[in-house]
Amino acid sequence: MIVYVRGNAGENGIASLGDYINGLGGSFHRAYLFEKTFFVVSGIDMEQTCEHPAIEKIFRPGTPYQLAHRELNPEGTAVAVGGAVIGDGCVSVIAGPCSVENKQQLSEIAGFVKSAGAEVLRGGAYKLRTSPYTFQGLGEEGLKILKEVSEENNIPVVTEFTDTRDADLLFQYADIIQIGTRNSLNFPLLQLAGEMGKPVLLKRGQSSTVEEFLMASEHILSRGNSQVILCERGIRTFEDATRNTLDISAIPILKRATHLPVIADPSHAAGDSYLVPALALAAIAAGADGIMVEVHSAPQAALSDSGQALSFSQFSDMMENINKITGAFGKAAHAPLRGAER
Amino acid sequence: MIVYVRGNAGENGIASLGDYINGLGGSFHRAYLFEKTFFVVSGIDMEQTCEHPAIEKIFRPGTPYQLAHRELNPEGTAVAVGGAVIGDGCVSVIAGPCSVENKQQLSEIAGFVKSAGAEVLRGGAYKLRTSPYTFQGLGEEGLKILKEVSEENNIPVVTEFTDTRDADLLFQYADIIQIGTRNSLNFPLLQLAGEMGKPVLLKRGQSSTVEEFLMASEHILSRGNSQVILCERGIRTFEDATRNTLDISAIPILKRATHLPVIADPSHAAGDSYLVPALALAAIAAGADGIMVEVHSAPQAALSDSGQALSFSQFSDMMENINKITGAFGKAAHAPLRGAER
Amino acid sequence: MIVYVRGNAGENGIASLGDYINGLGGSFHRAYLFEKTFFVVSGIDMEQTCEHPAIEKIFRPGTPYQLAHRELNPEGTAVAVGGAVIGDGCVSVIAGPCSVENKQQLSEIAGFVKSAGAEVLRGGAYKLRTSPYTFQGLGEEGLKILKEVSEENNIPVVTEFTDTRDADLLFQYADIIQIGTRNSLNFPLLQLAGEMGKPVLLKRGQSSTVEEFLMASEHILSRGNSQVILCERGIRTFEDATRNTLDISAIPILKRATHLPVIADPSHAAGDSYLVPALALAAIAAGADGIMVEVHSAPQAALSDSGQALSFSQFSDMMENINKITGAFGKAAHAPLRGAER
Amino acid sequence: MIVYVRGNAGENGIASLGDYINGLGGSFHRAYLFEKTFFVVSGIDMEQTCEHPAIEKIFRPGTPYQLAHRELNPEGTAVAVGGAVIGDGCVSVIAGPCSVENKQQLSEIAGFVKSAGAEVLRGGAYKLRTSPYTFQGLGEEGLKILKEVSEENNIPVVTEFTDTRDADLLFQYADIIQIGTRNSLNFPLLQLAGEMGKPVLLKRGQSSTVEEFLMASEHILSRGNSQVILCERGIRTFEDATRNTLDISAIPILKRATHLPVIADPSHAAGDSYLVPALALAAIAAGADGIMVEVHSAPQAALSDSGQALSFSQFSDMMENINKITGAFGKAAHAPLRGAER
Repeated sequence: MIVYVRGNAGENGIASLGDYINGLGGSFHRAYLFEKTFFVVSGIDMEQTCEHPAIEKIFRPGTPYQLAHRELNPEGTAVAVGGAVIGDGCVSVIAGPCSVENKQQLSEIAGFVKSAGAEVLRGGAYKLRTSPYTFQGLGEEGLKILKEVSEENNIPVVTEFTDTRDADLLFQYADIIQIGTRNSLNFPLLQLAGEMGKPVLLKRGQSSTVEEFLMASEHILSRGNSQVILCERGIRTFEDATRNTLDISAIPILKRATHLPVIADPSHAAGDSYLVPALALAAIAAGADGIMVEVHSAPQAALSDSGQALSFSQFSDMMENINKITGAFGKAAHAPLRGAER
Repeated sequence: MIVYVRGNAGENGIASLGDYINGLGGSFHRAYLFEKTFFVVSGIDMEQTCEHPAIEKIFRPGTPYQLAHRELNPEGTAVAVGGAVIGDGCVSVIAGPCSVENKQQLSEIAGFVKSAGAEVLRGGAYKLRTSPYTFQGLGEEGLKILKEVSEENNIPVVTEFTDTRDADLLFQYADIIQIGTRNSLNFPLLQLAGEMGKPVLLKRGQSSTVEEFLMASEHILSRGNSQVILCERGIRTFEDATRNTLDISAIPILKRATHLPVIADPSHAAGDSYLVPALALAAIAAGADGIMVEVHSAPQAALSDSGQALSFSQFSDMMENINKITGAFGKAAHAPLRGAER
Repeated sequence: MIVYVRGNAGENGIASLGDYINGLGGSFHRAYLFEKTFFVVSGIDMEQTCEHPAIEKIFRPGTPYQLAHRELNPEGTAVAVGGAVIGDGCVSVIAGPCSVENKQQLSEIAGFVKSAGAEVLRGGAYKLRTSPYTFQGLGEEGLKILKEVSEENNIPVVTEFTDTRDADLLFQYADIIQIGTRNSLNFPLLQLAGEMGKPVLLKRGQSSTVEEFLMASEHILSRGNSQVILCERGIRTFEDATRNTLDISAIPILKRATHLPVIADPSHAAGDSYLVPALALAAIAAGADGIMVEVHSAPQAALSDSGQALSFSQFSDMMENINKITGAFGKAAHAPLRGAER
Repeated sequence: MIVYVRGNAGENGIASLGDYINGLGGSFHRAYLFEKTFFVVSGIDMEQTCEHPAIEKIFRPGTPYQLAHRELNPEGTAVAVGGAVIGDGCVSVIAGPCSVENKQQLSEIAGFVKSAGAEVLRGGAYKLRTSPYTFQGLGEEGLKILKEVSEENNIPVVTEFTDTRDADLLFQYADIIQIGTRNSLNFPLLQLAGEMGKPVLLKRGQSSTVEEFLMASEHILSRGNSQVILCERGIRTFEDATRNTLDISAIPILKRATHLPVIADPSHAAGDSYLVPALALAAIAAGADGIMVEVHSAPQAALSDSGQALSFSQFSDMMENINKITGAFGKAAHAPLRGAER
């Protein structure tokens, strides 16, 4: 249950409201989002008792997720960063290599994907690899390269945050903080990302339900950070023809359930570059606010995930087809989904 | 391993080839497809031994499926029935109620979906229901209604075949024989459907891999029937926000793997009508040759699957959006996928 | 909702009760089980209306399965056939080859497994194989061999029923009718098996929930056949270290939910013979009424499933360990589970 | 590929070996385990080149996991801590509440479970909860209570490590460091746990394959820590009758694959206390070195996971049945599995 606190309640009014709720036997979590103070209340039902003067209104989402509920921001939340906007009704493309390998590699890729229409550059500096004996990323050196290339190409960067001890480094170098699928239920990491005050790109856990995915975002939102991008990237199923099974249905479900922007990562879902363009188009047709794909200047030589990276020409072709779809639905690419979701 | 038999081999040449293969220690299955005789050979590798005069060429698919391999008909197989063509490069729509309930219901729905652009009418007469105590379909009475409505509306019908004892009835009344997800591994039924000489719409088993799905089609093809439409309809996963998880990746994978047309059934995948249009558009963007959806004149009153049936207005809106996508890619709606698949 | 019909109601009373229920707007299915007539009633709640003289009592299972509910036979149903009893509180072992290959093979295996303690002989005559080009079983010839070996060794046989057209043959030759995992949702086949009046061994579908498994048994029970043995044989998951994932929890869940006996098939779950003994012991420790395993005199030469068949010495060792466990819990091997289930 | 370094190689010999491998174009990871130095070598095959004097022998596991391979310690690794030994051939029981709630609660439970035969006390101080609005554990206060109760009852404790920033605290208070299912792929956390020099109880990720589970242990072993206990706790599947599906097959597979001890957590697998004893017995019959279960003095009032905690009497009954099984197989409870695994 969410209590909207009156804008003029003041700290005294807020404190009084907290006492009031505790007095009724309830507990509450306070969060400041969309320039407004919310109390997420647990343990009591305040239906008959909303007479406290600091209460503007009460909303019962009827779902385990609270602040992520679409009703909190019915027009939808747009995430703006370094010139890019994700969730404004247009389709955004995030592209780049799996791992940052060296400055030349990243510069070349950044220049190309930007010229082809990408709004954000991706690249991993800390890589979570199944084997401790393979390339684990360049670490801080990779972050520095990202920052340099970002500035030289005037494109914001997203990179993965894997260890709470790295928070200061990530804050310094990244524009968007990525939480990967392996850390999707690492709540201390999520909460810390929420406290960093930067946009967070949250990937779905490979065995998370849509509801658990939304609950993971709630850990970030509850820290007062509404700048969260949800990323469907495939779930684990019995099917082994793909690395993961892209859950295309999650896109329209999430668009209806939450105010947060929703993108898809067809590269990690497919695990094979030939499938990526078809899945990217499908995600956009299903209403995604954007896609994140892996692109490499020499896919076969990539230090990680080489099988799924698009070549430059594959990326260009895909962008052309994306433009055909968005063109067909007018400027607001998601119109069909918007229609479907109501 | 597939042996293409020379067109002029004659029955004597074919018999001699069979003896030759047996003599080498191999076994073979003979099938006549695309106006050509094929031998699917097992147990030997004929690389060094293709000197028999009846052999035109030898093809090693390198996959468990043989006759379903794309190489057998590289341009793709189109299924033509009663004026409809599925797999000719355009998007086909199959629509109708889950169950045939009565003639008036079916007539009304058939008239509407045809006017809105559907090429084939669907409707179940034999329903496989989890509970033996719920509506099990009208049986033969339902088949008769289907036939009448088909003729009155000049639209071919697809209906489900659930019991080998019903083969004659199905043959008499149906234009396309549907094998449902529960019977996707019922090989006697598949083989009998293959022998009926009518087009078969084969749904993927809810726990079949893409490869097993292709192997199921092989049971039909091996009976000399190339008129098979593959239908992705969602697989069973841990996710419970949808009835099944539409495996959107299966579409581009199948389009590359096989010559058979591939459609999607978003209704059974989603289990909720609000999701159907978004999934239908996604399937088409991913390269599907068509979709099959449930439509009802009064969805809430449907005798089965009421939650997932589209209303008439939902269906019309969806068709409009489908046309926007196919328009964007020129007449051949699958152009983007065709690009991706090579 | 289940209505227990009074034993002295007579056909007139029963007919009157049917009219009464229809008059209230309900529908009913009549079944005769445990020497008693039951009405499974749908569409109405008869709480306030059980004044009809043919009603003995009313039971509301609160579950989708009705006649399978444990309450219908609280002490548990035992299936007795040809000297074997499954479900009487002792552990039963069903063993034999995957496929009947020839009489000598089956005789040798039958003699051995019986001497080592097996109560029932298994062997497939109709094999559902993923590929249409591999050994499909000996068919009727296999059934005849089964019958001969059964009589010569005085051991009942279980074999798979795969096509409704084979009902007469199966009835003639089999002691227990097996429904395999691929046909677990083939309701016409299940219903026909129910009508044959012979015990049915029903395997769980590879993607069936426990509840769907019970609903499949309901299709048999609803035909007046209470002689159903449920067989857990593994479900399909992402894990590929085994052929299927044995759902060991299903055993105590089923033992509590239903009156039917529950056995496990570790051979098909594991797909590798070295795992079979450990899984067999686990199933028994979890409360199973028995196990079904594949045994072959020369596993590596088996015509199907060669990797999972136990050799004679593996089978003997396993039987010895089973006896240790059953010995530890007294004659009634399932005592621990019985304790747990209440 | 693993190089066993000669015990008398000295730092000079080890350095020379490193240069030698680099010179061949390979890379290596050095680990000290079982009082021996190992080089895990990547990128080259040293079959023809093992002439370096520091090489004792070369082992090719043929699996992605290297140091976890059973061959590294064929008799099996036993983990000894505070009087308890896990993996010595007897069955060990770890028991306690889900969360530490207060000292009185923990004391009462610790006293009881120890008297009934538990060797290790479990209890969470940092809880990873799906919702940020529910009880998140007592944190450091919980660790202090664990330490006090451990000392007063002379029983070692295991508790969960959830954030790399908490390493010093965990080191100070815990006897065994638990890595939970949500962090099973949080490699920085695993590596840090490996460096702490304390035994680690590693739970399987809810969507990890057995191979990925072993690779997670490799991250710990690679830091020179061989004291790792593997805990099967159920995987995520479509089945919703249980919280997770206990993968009983993983037990014999792991016992054969690795030298590490293997236990099962039936509480989190089942999610319902009535199933726990049957699953615990099954795990032991399948060859587990022990079990970990949740026990509470007042299960219904537990602050977390109340549905799955055993009451004191359920725990006592289960322990009695465990003793029956271990008794049946002699002192070494795992004899049946040991037999099965070879």
